[in-house]
Amino acid sequence: MSSVLVTNVGELTTNDSTLGDGSMLGLIHDAALVIENGQVSWVGDRRLAPPADRAIDAGDAAVIPGFVDSHSHLVFAGDRAAEFAARMTGHPYAAGGIRTTVSATRAATDETLSINVAHLVDEMLRQGTTTVEIKSGYGLTVADELRSLAIARQFTEETTFLGAHVVPPEFVDDPAGYVELVTGSMLEAAAPYARWVDVFCERGAFDGDQARAILQAGMAAGLLPRVHANQLGPGPGVQIACEMGAASADHCTHLSKQDIEALSSSGVVATLLPAVEFSTRSVYPDARALLAAGVTVALASDCNPGSCYSSSMPLCIALAVREMRMSPGEALWAATCGGATALRRDDVGHLGVGAKGDFAVLAAPSYLHLAYRPGVPLISSAYAAGRRVA
Amino acid sequence: MSSVLVTNVGELTTNDSTLGDGSMLGLIHDAALVIENGQVSWVGDRRLAPPADRAIDAGDAAVIPGFVDSHSHLVFAGDRAAEFAARMTGHPYAAGGIRTTVSATRAATDETLSINVAHLVDEMLRQGTTTVEIKSGYGLTVADELRSLAIARQFTEETTFLGAHVVPPEFVDDPAGYVELVTGSMLEAAAPYARWVDVFCERGAFDGDQARAILQAGMAAGLLPRVHANQLGPGPGVQIACEMGAASADHCTHLSKQDIEALSSSGVVATLLPAVEFSTRSVYPDARALLAAGVTVALASDCNPGSCYSSSMPLCIALAVREMRMSPGEALWAATCGGATALRRDDVGHLGVGAKGDFAVLAAPSYLHLAYRPGVPLISSAYAAGRRVA
Repeated sequence: MSSVLVTNVGELTTNDSTLGDGSMLGLIHDAALVIENGQVSWVGDRRLAPPADRAIDAGDAAVIPGFVDSHSHLVFAGDRAAEFAARMTGHPYAAGGIRTTVSATRAATDETLSINVAHLVDEMLRQGTTTVEIKSGYGLTVADELRSLAIARQFTEETTFLGAHVVPPEFVDDPAGYVELVTGSMLEAAAPYARWVDVFCERGAFDGDQARAILQAGMAAGLLPRVHANQLGPGPGVQIACEMGAASADHCTHLSKQDIEALSSSGVVATLLPAVEFSTRSVYPDARALLAAGVTVALASDCNPGSCYSSSMPLCIALAVREMRMSPGEALWAATCGGATALRRDDVGHLGVGAKGDFAVLAAPSYLHLAYRPGVPLISSAYAAGRRVA
Repeated sequence: MSSVLVTNVGELTTNDSTLGDGSMLGLIHDAALVIENGQVSWVGDRRLAPPADRAIDAGDAAVIPGFVDSHSHLVFAGDRAAEFAARMTGHPYAAGGIRTTVSATRAATDETLSINVAHLVDEMLRQGTTTVEIKSGYGLTVADELRSLAIARQFTEETTFLGAHVVPPEFVDDPAGYVELVTGSMLEAAAPYARWVDVFCERGAFDGDQARAILQAGMAAGLLPRVHANQLGPGPGVQIACEMGAASADHCTHLSKQDIEALSSSGVVATLLPAVEFSTRSVYPDARALLAAGVTVALASDCNPGSCYSSSMPLCIALAVREMRMSPGEALWAATCGGATALRRDDVGHLGVGAKGDFAVLAAPSYLHLAYRPGVPLISSAYAAGRRVA
């Protein structure tokens, strides 16, 4: 038994609407929380806090649940900074650029890949992200997808098999053959290391029929579905996600009214990735239409070397507010509880009793500063299961 | 005599086009530099570096000149996060909001103001900013402007008298009386603590005639002029800056062709503050038109509690690239050498021989990552005159 009291919290975001101000964020001022054996055991007014083995003084700063980044691609090698610079001076983003990273990833040692992931996970912790989903998808051979997931699994339970990221060069004349590989021996090798199956359903990647086949095979192998949907243009991705009961449809940049209705009636989370739109100079998703329709919205980074090499959830919040007209509170909720919902997790993304003790202390008096102070490193410390991790 | 060798620099940006690749950035790969008594005494190929008393190993990372943030308002008290949140959900930015901060600043103790500045300057150092200009302008009485500048002077030589920030409430019916105060006893009290005089020439603040009178009085008192120009709409600010030989016209969001021609022919620096446009959901300045006309462009933060509470020069670079179509190299130059030019400084903003040893080590192999990785804290350490400061 070991307990820790986090006290002198100027503003605590619990994401439990039965607490504090009763809002979606369940804000408590002059708050404290107690974490026992890694879980929140008490939360409330700091003057009423029970004793604990040790104490952390938040110095009147704001405390928020650790960010839940439900979409990232961290297992890769190589550098695409020059491609980024070219894109910014006039060359549009195309899914084919993924193949550059595939070559570098295949050529890298396990150790290099593992060091790269460790570096990015650490960078995320320093920015307050305590839960991260990590996809494969830069290997695209049985052996390279397998090792990508085995490496990812060293860092998170939330691993996603994305053999269907793009058709690799050696299958360019035989995409059906690649789908057969993905749904056959590649899936068989990957499944023990993955919780999720995902597909990039997009022109230039996989079409609707291919996406269905890949998700169905993944589900038959015991994986849960999620979909890269409607990023670069309208398409069937969101509808497929809804049909198949995916946990989340990610991107949702180009949606029809029917897509929004399908998300709303199915309960599939719309995971928005605004740092991608920032980094590819794209239009942004219509978050307000989604929220108005009652869709659950999550924010995630999509950290990857091509379309978005940002690991910053605070930037996602600032962009959600500036570019998608989410309120700062909606954005914080989406980056925490929204991400947890997109991963079907009820133990993270909030700080109600029973939640994991994953939280970040801000160098600011209120969560509002995450949007109010864009670009400023505002995470002064981060904790996972009550232990300091950054 | 004390010398330090900075070696194993994977990519060194010198901003000296006679060095390295001969570009505007004067990039040297596998570089080193030597700093003696606070100044760069040698720069070049690391294999040829002379010995020094001690060494810093940059670990093959990129090294850049410390950022020169030539426009900030750090002397204030109070919090306007709620105003920001309201603005993001529909209320436009208005200059009048400045008065909220004026009340809080007047009510604050010297110690509170000083602690606030120290906190923000430290935050800037951690983000690689080693030279910062700080304005007064939230006091707006003789005593409060005087103490604002005296506090700013504790942190930087680049202090700016901005009594003409906005007409304070007690002069709302007598703006001419306020201009008389600013150009009279307030200027007299402020001048010993200021290098620069500035005026917010904008509808809702000071008109062209008032701006001219204020700048002329400041210049007669030995101060150098700079101007807040053409931020919220077209206006005479840029033309006045050019007429009066200001070092810089800041904002430049709404320019006519004549304004661009005047900047080009006068040599006045156009200081762009894109984090303001981000934080006020404004259109961005036309950086490409300015660059095409041969205007010297600087980037600065405008860190202030109202229109832009970001101190992040890396964010300014990312926004300049994404939103204003500057290349990553143009943006880095503008955030370093451009800022130095806007402050008429030739000892900072570059790392040629004779420059101050002010630099930042990036957690990245190239300066390109400043734009490629928006929001990510990429400054691993910062040095001023060869001494580690963050």
